[in-house]
This record gives sequence, structure tokens and C-alpha cells, in this order.
Amino acid sequence: MGYWDGFKGSKWRTTVDVRDFIQANYTEYKGDDSFLEPAADSTEKLWTKLQELFEVQHEQNGVYDMDNNIPATVTSHEPGYLIKEEEKIVGLQTDVPLKQAFMPFGGINMANNALVSNGYEVDDEMTKIFSDWRKTHNQGVFDAYTPEMRAARKNKIITGLPDAYGRGRIIGDYRRLALYGIDFLIAEKKKDLSNVGNKVMTDDVIRLREEVSDQIKALVDIKEMATYYGFDISKPAKNAQEAIQWLYFGYLAAIKSQNGAAMSIGRISAFLDIYIQRDLENGVINEAEAQELIDHLIMKLRMVKFARTPEYNQLFSGYPIWATLSIAGMGIDGRSLVTKNDFRILHTLTNMGPSPEPNLTVLYSSHLPEGFRTYAAKIAKESSSIQFENDDLLRANWGSDDCAIACCVSATVMGKDMQFFGARANLAKAVLYAINGGVDEVTKAQVAPRFRPMTGDTLNYDEFITRYKDMLDWLAELYVNTLNVIHYMHDKYAYEAPQLAFMDTDLKRTFATGIAGISHAADSIMAIKHGNVQVIRDEDGLAVDYVPQNEFPTYGNDNEEADAMANWILDYFMTQIKRQHTYRNSTPTTSLLTITSNVVYGKATGNTPDGRRAGKPLAPGANPSYQDGKFLGEKNGLLASLNSTARLAYTSALDGISNTQTINPNGLGKDDDTRINNLRNVMDGYFDRGGYHLNVNVFTTDLLLDAQAHPEKYPNLTIRVSGYAVKFRDLTPEQQADVISRTAHDRM
Amino acid sequence: MGYWDGFKGSKWRTTVDVRDFIQANYTEYKGDDSFLEPAADSTEKLWTKLQELFEVQHEQNGVYDMDNNIPATVTSHEPGYLIKEEEKIVGLQTDVPLKQAFMPFGGINMANNALVSNGYEVDDEMTKIFSDWRKTHNQGVFDAYTPEMRAARKNKIITGLPDAYGRGRIIGDYRRLALYGIDFLIAEKKKDLSNVGNKVMTDDVIRLREEVSDQIKALVDIKEMATYYGFDISKPAKNAQEAIQWLYFGYLAAIKSQNGAAMSIGRISAFLDIYIQRDLENGVINEAEAQELIDHLIMKLRMVKFARTPEYNQLFSGYPIWATLSIAGMGIDGRSLVTKNDFRILHTLTNMGPSPEPNLTVLYSSHLPEGFRTYAAKIAKESSSIQFENDDLLRANWGSDDCAIACCVSATVMGKDMQFFGARANLAKAVLYAINGGVDEVTKAQVAPRFRPMTGDTLNYDEFITRYKDMLDWLAELYVNTLNVIHYMHDKYAYEAPQLAFMDTDLKRTFATGIAGISHAADSIMAIKHGNVQVIRDEDGLAVDYVPQNEFPTYGNDNEEADAMANWILDYFMTQIKRQHTYRNSTPTTSLLTITSNVVYGKATGNTPDGRRAGKPLAPGANPSYQDGKFLGEKNGLLASLNSTARLAYTSALDGISNTQTINPNGLGKDDDTRINNLRNVMDGYFDRGGYHLNVNVFTTDLLLDAQAHPEKYPNLTIRVSGYAVKFRDLTPEQQADVISRTAHDRM
Repeated sequence: MGYWDGFKGSKWRTTVDVRDFIQANYTEYKGDDSFLEPAADSTEKLWTKLQELFEVQHEQNGVYDMDNNIPATVTSHEPGYLIKEEEKIVGLQTDVPLKQAFMPFGGINMANNALVSNGYEVDDEMTKIFSDWRKTHNQGVFDAYTPEMRAARKNKIITGLPDAYGRGRIIGDYRRLALYGIDFLIAEKKKDLSNVGNKVMTDDVIRLREEVSDQIKALVDIKEMATYYGFDISKPAKNAQEAIQWLYFGYLAAIKSQNGAAMSIGRISAFLDIYIQRDLENGVINEAEAQELIDHLIMKLRMVKFARTPEYNQLFSGYPIWATLSIAGMGIDGRSLVTKNDFRILHTLTNMGPSPEPNLTVLYSSHLPEGFRTYAAKIAKESSSIQFENDDLLRANWGSDDCAIACCVSATVMGKDMQFFGARANLAKAVLYAINGGVDEVTKAQVAPRFRPMTGDTLNYDEFITRYKDMLDWLAELYVNTLNVIHYMHDKYAYEAPQLAFMDTDLKRTFATGIAGISHAADSIMAIKHGNVQVIRDEDGLAVDYVPQNEFPTYGNDNEEADAMANWILDYFMTQIKRQHTYRNSTPTTSLLTITSNVVYGKATGNTPDGRRAGKPLAPGANPSYQDGKFLGEKNGLLASLNSTARLAYTSALDGISNTQTINPNGLGKDDDTRINNLRNVMDGYFDRGGYHLNVNVFTTDLLLDAQAHPEKYPNLTIRVSGYAVKFRDLTPEQQADVISRTAHDRM
Repeated sequence: MGYWDGFKGSKWRTTVDVRDFIQANYTEYKGDDSFLEPAADSTEKLWTKLQELFEVQHEQNGVYDMDNNIPATVTSHEPGYLIKEEEKIVGLQTDVPLKQAFMPFGGINMANNALVSNGYEVDDEMTKIFSDWRKTHNQGVFDAYTPEMRAARKNKIITGLPDAYGRGRIIGDYRRLALYGIDFLIAEKKKDLSNVGNKVMTDDVIRLREEVSDQIKALVDIKEMATYYGFDISKPAKNAQEAIQWLYFGYLAAIKSQNGAAMSIGRISAFLDIYIQRDLENGVINEAEAQELIDHLIMKLRMVKFARTPEYNQLFSGYPIWATLSIAGMGIDGRSLVTKNDFRILHTLTNMGPSPEPNLTVLYSSHLPEGFRTYAAKIAKESSSIQFENDDLLRANWGSDDCAIACCVSATVMGKDMQFFGARANLAKAVLYAINGGVDEVTKAQVAPRFRPMTGDTLNYDEFITRYKDMLDWLAELYVNTLNVIHYMHDKYAYEAPQLAFMDTDLKRTFATGIAGISHAADSIMAIKHGNVQVIRDEDGLAVDYVPQNEFPTYGNDNEEADAMANWILDYFMTQIKRQHTYRNSTPTTSLLTITSNVVYGKATGNTPDGRRAGKPLAPGANPSYQDGKFLGEKNGLLASLNSTARLAYTSALDGISNTQTINPNGLGKDDDTRINNLRNVMDGYFDRGGYHLNVNVFTTDLLLDAQAHPEKYPNLTIRVSGYAVKFRDLTPEQQADVISRTAHDRM
């Protein structure tokens, strides 16, 4: 059979257009989960073996083994296997399962710290090479930083900057490899190269020409890498197994060569279903074999590991790598993109139990077939391992039904967009800087310009707002320019050629800033406006504590004024962000997303005027504040909280708005069917109202307390935190305490 | 005694301003050479030892020894000595005299070819490092080149591009190290860094910030390197020996870390004389010891070596490295800058015999003291090792009396300017492209756009000029954009931090293009206009030969029309060059300079309409054509030739106009005194008429013929070729033949 036999459509045949191929060939599925098959024998064997390795890894603080002297490239390692004869899909990052590669291009100190902190030896020759002869991304950034940038970073008004780790958030469209084979992609990139620039060699043209040349070399390397595993990927895949294998080889090249913060795999479900469906119809495989292939692919995604430092693990607890995989979603022609494969992918959580990776993401709409919405709600309730994003908002704002989520909540159109990821600015701390004239409340350092501080015993709203705007103006400018440095150097010293090779040459680039502490900023301003906040000062006159005298409205309780305040902050800050020069004229966006870094950020943030105590975690992402002091907390139940979050303007935060909720099963109803139906109905309502994202956890706080006390009883307990899923036992003690302290809604 | 005791002036004390220091402190010398002292005992011993090493080097094709696995950096090697206890000035490029360092940053293939072609082994680990992990300048350039650029390069319409070797032509102001010590320079660069950019991080600002950071690191490395030799260079030099040593350490850092085409040391004579004069006056040293210090410094400059490939040696024959050292010149206040040191430096050619390096360059003016002009003429006559540049033109066009020459004829203001060197376009070949519609006459490839060719049996002037303009328009655009790629990549992959560290952060950058074949282009157009040129075509109709029927005026014979034609070509091409976008908004310039590459370029250029035969060398630089065919050659003697060259507009060729002349001693007069006086008078007249440059050779063709037949008799015979001096025995056979075929004027 020919590669493309039986496929319909024409446009995709002569030019790279995976979406056109999908639209012309996919089979929408409106049924339920009854067709699904259990794990195959090979899956059981492999998964059993892998769990043994996971145990070793867990006992060794997340490290099974590490390289210290093979700089990781696409072709740096011999092939490796879990159980060679059982694997339907092959390919490891290194030559041994779970062994972490040595990745010095981002920063030799980082790479060496990861080794030393895990008890491995540093290789002096490597240190010499990547210090004396080959500059790294990290070194480049610090060579160009200004003292102000270093101070802002050190004092954590800007945090989590990807200057000591890979920016990630780039999704290669690895489907292209399966559909076209690598020779076609090389030929297309060569054609592109011949059309980059027209005689005049500006820096931009030269840079892009070099990048495309590097992409072509990367494709050649990937072809060679596949031969190590015995495959010739020159030509398109000719069946489902090859399609999955080819696609995975593309992704494998990415995770072999880059330790980006989020190494997402994108939207692959309907695409692969077309190959599976063809094989099923032609009797090449049966459903059990189809599930086996999907299970094996997912198992590979569960095995991805990167060497990381203790500091990194503090920020992003539980070793997440964001192999985010997006499923479902609606088509712009009104059909849903749900196929049997979306069921198969969710079913891996049953066949192999819950798992943090891949970061399974349902592109949700109330227009999706009810069978699928019900099944997704069921799996969410059972596993607390999946997240939901509003597909109606994605299509409306990104103009495509081929979006995927990178990392947690960042939308990107497959193969068309890339993101300059930029972590986040702490807008709760900015409130304190506005009050103290730019002096950091924790370190006492003058970090922002010497703006006039607020004096007096209580805080005046009008005086405060003027100062807060000044502070946000300064912060937005500094923040964007810090990111300009980072991305210039990332392109220079750690360019992701193997990923960009699977994307259009003429790329849309977004410049993704982020905001931490939105709820505390909003609540603090509401407190200043309505709460008659008394100021307590230290011996130097620095405001160090605040006592609201009166009750005030807070964000997260369906109060329109408080919710509008959160939107005002978002809009004002984003407006300032947009005024700046951005690297490569990328399009500025922002996110309300902290991942688990809310704990570290909170630790570095003093008492806030809303009554939150110094050092306590910030509320994660766009979540409302937890109960703290007299007036904070979600007091009106789940739906009120969701209504507040849904009011935040996605158009001002196109990099995403993260919302993590925990619901007591009893709050959803008395029996499983009721609970599943109610959860589905809650999501229908939330997303119809414009909510962007929901991490769904269904369990009781008691369960977590028991897991905290007896981790050995819950080796696989997986929960959703801000933006990803994580094994509870892998969280740091502080993160566990933070999760437990969050509101678990007992009522809708 | 304090570092600066006895020095006058104030401005230079608080800010880096070496010129101000010189102006306030130097002692003009108007006497003759009678004060000079012979070589010291130590000098004799060192020079004898060095000549032994040179013999070994000569027997081994210019290679004494080579490194293959230590990438050269400022601190990569242990200290090395010739005879440690005899050396007043210390410091070698590697740990062994004349051993060539391994320099892979410009290109690993280049570095490896240099090894292999000289019988050394390639180190596989190094190849891996500089292929897989650390991209080189050469790789970067070829990643970005367009097919048109590759074709132009391959077909040699653009030639000698610094894409496989270092661009050179950058002169660090190493005097700064002696005057200020390295700590002050580090502090100044740190101050600069804090003032690069104002908040907004454009690519330009980021790049410069990184560069200044790299410069600071380089200064720290240089300080460390000096400690290997037992010196603490933190503080200013406190006597002449330290001043020379500090200055040389600065230069040494450059030649340890970069193999630029021209590693010039700049204008250091009056500066060092100030230190020597102070020591003489204070009885610290006597004149013999002063000469000893200068001899030892010059000896170090004679020892500089770089590993190079056979292709490079073909282009630039005899292993030149252009340690160009500029002396004399006038001050803008009317005093000359001649000091005793200018005599001492020329005197090294007597004390240690003639030598190609350093490339001794007299900044000449008829206003220089007669004693010095006479002495310079004497040394030129005796050694044929020095060149002269028009200092009146330098001051008028560069606005400074602190210019130095980089390489051969490229002016640069010390510490203020750098140059993006760009080799040259072959305008003689462009004549043939204009006739043949962009088809190369040698390779038959379509290189330029498919412009309309000239048909018919004879060449019409008006038709030709239209086509030639089209061709120059195309060539200028392509050439500049090719150089844009090269310099972008050079900055990216082989940035000269140790050199730029001794220059202003706010630098003026020139973009130095170059022209080869000016005389053949001018003569060919004169032939087309006046000579009724018959065309001979091959079987495809391509014009392959030309027969001028009538005599026509030629450049180099004091004919105003022919000389004006050369100026028209220069002006037209330069005007097109100026229209282009240049990297970092550098200022475009051009040169009429071929160095010895005129032989290689001529080899690749077909028959020209002026009657020059295919494959014959082009006339070098701005030199008139040699006799070839019926009508070519300098027929009116030396002065007529000089008059023609002096007519070329330096304002259109601010990168320099090279003129190399050989005079039969008898043509200058009957006895030595007459010859010296006549030579001085010839130069006074030539430079007063606006001639820019003169390489002076005084010998007979017979001498060269004898040296060609019996090289063993002339181990140190040194001659001036286009832009540098070279040992005759080190020239390739083709270059020797070219030199012999040049006009040796028998009459003035």
C-alpha cells in the first residue's frame, strides 16, 4: 500500500498543510467509551518494568542516572530500550531509560549544579569547553544584563526568568514528519532558505538564513538518529505504527537536544486517528492493537526526564516537563474534532493508572459531543490528572482550529507560532513597592526608581493608584527589556533547531510575559479603597505591615467591583507591556499563571494590605486568595469562584489564565454518575461564561492529609496544581502544605 | 619614582586619552642618525638564535612547529622564551618560539587543513568540539550565504573574502595599557558598560553590552597572562622597559587569540620615546640600552606566526602577518611627531638586518625634518623593506594626527576606529562580465544576472559603458551584502575582545571594500573607446579574446584622459557601494590594493580588451599595467607613473591606494648620497602632488634573477610587494616571476 493510499484532499499533498490533511480525512466520533480495550500484554510488561525504574528514581530523589560528559545532541547517544522486544514505539533520550542527559548549552553552571546536587561528578574537560571555548545562554544573558535587571531578579519582583534554563514553550509540528517524511521537509526548508531575504543582508535576514540552515542540518541529524533504531524516515509513514513512530522521532529529537521548561508535543490526536482508522478499516490492526500503540506512545511521554537543579525543583515542584498533549476541540466548520483517539488517549490513565505526564489537556466546549464530555469528566474525577481549556476562546482569538497548548495554558497554532516565554512579574510585590517608593520590603534594597513613598498612618486610595501606575510603568519596561536580552541570547546560544525545523519558516512569534499575585494585588487595592488600611512601619519608616479596619470586597466571590479591579490591573499592565520594543517584533501577551512558583514568590513577598501574611504562598495563577487574616478567602462556593475567574478578560491575557480548583466528591453529588454529570455541567457553564482554563481535582482534604502523613500508601496519587499534574509524594513539603491549605469546595 | 612623575598635561590623567599625553610630553627630534647605537650583546645572541630557528622554519616550509589540540586563548599557554636571561622584553604566542597556535574559532576546517598540509595530525576531539558543539565563523558564514554569493566567490569576481580567515585590520591601542595599567582600563570599561543603552534593549544594545562584558573579561585574562611572565600589570608602567613590556603584552594578547589577516601594532613610536627620554634624562638607561629595548621589541614582532593553509599562502605569499608599525607623521599643531625613537625603529633594519616584519611604515610629509626624511630614504634604499604613506592626506581626511596604518594602506585613528575588512571585487573581470552578459569567461557559468551581452565584431564604447554600469551596480550590491554576512558572523563567532578592549566603546566603524584590477579596467575602457577593439568569440558566441587595432592612452603614463577614466571607475563603484545597507551602519570605504593576490586574481581572469593575456597577473594595487601585448606598460618613466597614481582621488578610496615601485639604483644617481637625496626628493614631490602610498624598492632586475636562480645566496633579501615586505625566497615561484616582470624604472 502506498503512503497516502485512501487519503482524501489535495492541498496538503503539495505543500506542508497538516490541518488541511486532518480536515479532509478525520472521522468524528460521537459515541461513548464502550469500544475501549484494556492494556495489552506488552503494555503490562513494559509498565511494570517502568514502575520498578520509577521506584528507584523516587528513592534517588528523582534521578535514576545522569550523564556528565556527553553534551546532548540529536545524535549523541546510542539507541536505548525499556524491553526491546516488547516496544511497539521505540526511542529514548539517552541510551538508558530515565537516564538524564548532560545539557550544557543553556548554562554549564546549571548543568554542573544538577550533577553535583545529585551526587554526580563534574567533568572538568566539559567545564573547560563550555567556559573557555563555547559560551552558553546563561553566560550570554548575564553578560548583557544591567544592574537594575539583576536587582529586580534578585529581589524577586521579576521571577522565574528563563535565563538559567531553556525557555521551552515551543511545539514542533511533529505530525509533519509522519505525513511527509523527512526528505520532503528538508526540500521545503531548502526552498524557504532560497527565499529568505532579497539581496539586502540586514541582521534579521542573516539571522534567519542561519537559523534555517541549522534547521536543515537538524533534519539531516534526525534522519540519522532514526537509523540508529533501524528506521528510514525519508518517506512518509505508511501505517499507524509508523505514523506514531515517525511523529515520536520528531518529538524525541526535541527532548534529546533541549531541556526547555515545557517540551509539549501538541495536538496529535485526530491526526493519528486517521492512520489508525485506515489500518482498522484495512484489517491491518484491531482496536486492542490500536490502544497498544497509543499506550506505548504515552508511556514514552511518561519517561521524559531532564537534569535539573534544586532551585529549579523549588520553583516547579515534582519534576514536571510539560509534555502537554492537547485533545478534542471544535472545528471551525462546526464539526467537533473528537475521534476515538481522544478516548484512547484518556484511557491510558485507566490502562496505566494516573500520571503527571503527558500533561493531558482537553480543549473543551459545550458543543463537543456529550459522550466525550461525559467521559472526560469521568476521567477527570477519577484521576485528577487532566486539565481543560476553553476551545471556543481559542478559535475566536487565535483564528484556528489547530491550536495546541504549550506548557499549561499557552495557546499556539501548530507549526505556525512560537513563543518567547518570559515567566512573570510579581504584581503583589509591586503594590508594596508603590507604597515604599521602590524599596523592597524584605531586603530593604532600593530596587525600583526612587519614587515618592506613601507616608502617614493609613493608605489613601487616590495616592496609592498614582504610585501603583508609576510602579507598573517601570516594571513593564524593565521586564520586557530583560526578556529581550534573554531571547536574544537564547537564539544566539541555545537555538532550538530540531523543533523549529518542524515549523513554518515565516513564523508568528509571541512575547509571553506573565503576572503573579493578581488576586493579592486586586484584594490589596480593594482593601486600600474600602478597608481603611492602617500601616505599621519599622524603625526606618518602611511600611512592613497592614491592618485593614473594615471589611472589603475580594476577588473570587462573584463581586463585580473586586473582579473589575483584577481586570483593571491586568489591562493596565498589559497596556504598558504593549508599549515596549519586543525582540524580533514579537507580539506581546501575558498570562495569569504561576505554576507552583506561587510558593517561592510568596516566600519573598512581605505582608500585603489585604491581610495576607508575609511569606505565605500567593494564590496560584488566577486563583482567588485563600483564607488568610480576617477578610480573605473564597466564601461563596465553587460557582461564585468560577464566575469571578470567568470575568477575567482573555483578550488581555492571551497567554492564558490558569485556574485550579479542588472539589470534594460529596459536593458534586451522592453517586458517581451524578458527580460526573454535575462536573460536566459545571464545566459547560464555566466555559460558556468565558472561563479560560480549569484544573480539576476531585478529592477531599483528608485524603491529602493522609497522603502527607503516609506517602508510602499513595505512590501514584496524582493531583492538578497550577498548570500541570504531579505525583503528590514528589511535591516539596512546602508545596504539599500549600495544596492542603487551598480551598476544597464542599458546595457548588 | 611614581608612574607619572615628570609627565606634563592633565586631560589624559583622568580619562583615556593617549594622544593628549603624547602631545603634552613628546620631544621632537630634528637631528640626524649620528646618535644611534649598534646592537647590544644580548640582541646579537638572541638574533643569532632566532636566525637558526628561522632556518629550520624555512626548511620546513614556513612551519617550525604547530599545536593541534590547544585552542589558543590569551591564557592557553605556559610562558615561553627564546633565551630567557637575555630577553629584555618577554612573551611568546605559545610556549615555544615560532610554534604556531591552534586557532579553530575562525573555522575548524581551516585550522585542520593548516595542520594536515604541513604534515601534522588532526585531533579528533577538537574536530568534534568545533563541529558539534561550537560553531565557527566560517560555518556561520556559509550557513547564511546565498547561492549567488557562493557563485561570485567561486568564480572570483569577488575574491579573498575573510570568511575562512580572520578579518584582522583592527589595531588595539596597546599604549593604553602602558600609560594607565590594566585596572584603570577595566574600571573605564565597566563605566562604559553601565552606559551602554538606556533601558530599551534593542539587538544593537544587547550586542554591544555583551561585547563590552567580553572585553572586560579579556582584560582580566591579560592581567593573568602577564603574571605567567612574572609581571603585575595592574598599574601603569613606571619606566621605558615596563612601558614597552606592558604595550607588548597588550599586543601579545591579540596575536595569542586571533589570527587576523593583519595584526598591526599601530603608532607607538613617539609614545615610547617619552618613556625612554624620561629614563635617559634620569640616568636610568643610556642610548645603547634604549636601542636594546627597541631591538628586542622589534625582534618579538619578527617572530609572530600563524598557522595557515596553502590556499592562504597562495593569496598572500611569504607568510606576511602585517605587524604594521607606523612612525613619524606631522602634528596638527605644525610640529612633526618625529622623535629619536623613529630613528631607533628604522635602525633595527641595520642592527638586525632587513626583515619583512614588522611592516615598517613611515607617515611621510615633505614637512618632516630633513634629517629624518634623509634617513628614511637611506634605509628604504638599503633595505627595500619600508613603505611610505602620505601623512598630509591622513590628517586632512581622518581629522587626527594619531592615525596608524592597519595592514598595508588602511588608515585608522588609534583606539577610535575599527575596520570591517572586505578584500576586493575584480573590476577587470567585471569588464568581461559586462561584455558577456554576466557569463564568466573562464568557467562559462552565468554568475551575474542575465543582462544583455554585447554582440558584434567590435566593441562600441557607449554600449559598453551602459552595460558596465549595470554590472558594477549588481556587483557593489552583492559584494556589500556578502560582507554584511561575514562581519555579522565574525562578531558572532570570532569577536576580537582582547583587541577591542583597548579601544573606545563608542567606536567608529569603517566598512572597507576593495578593488582589484583598476588599471586593466581603465585601460580596457580606453581601448574600447579609442582602440577599435576586435572581438574573438568561441563556438558559443562568448567573447574570449580582444584585439585592439589602434593605440590608446593608458593609465600610468601621465595621460589625463586615461587617469580620469581610472578615477571615474573608482568614483562610480564607490558611489554604488555607498548606497547599500552596511552592517552596524559602518562607513563605507574602498581601497586600491591587491597585496600579492593580483597573481591569483589574474590567473582567474580571461583576456582583457586592453591586450592583457588571460591568466597573467593583474597589476597590483593601483599600479599601472605592465607591458603586455602591443600597447600596455609604463613607457614614460618613474615620474610619469607616479603622477598618474597621484591623480587617483584618495577621497574616493579612503581605505588606501597602494603603489609599489622598483627603481634601479643607477636611475637614482651615481653615488649613494645622490641616490638618497634623489629618492627623498622624488617622495617629497610625489606626496606633495597627492600620491597616497609608495612601496620603495631599490635594486636591479638582475639581482632578482640571481636570487631566483640561487636562493641560498640571498637568505635575507627582502623586497616590498603590494602592501608589505617579504623575503624573496619565501615567495611562490609564480610570485617571484611576477615581481621580476614588473617594471624596474631605469630613469626618473
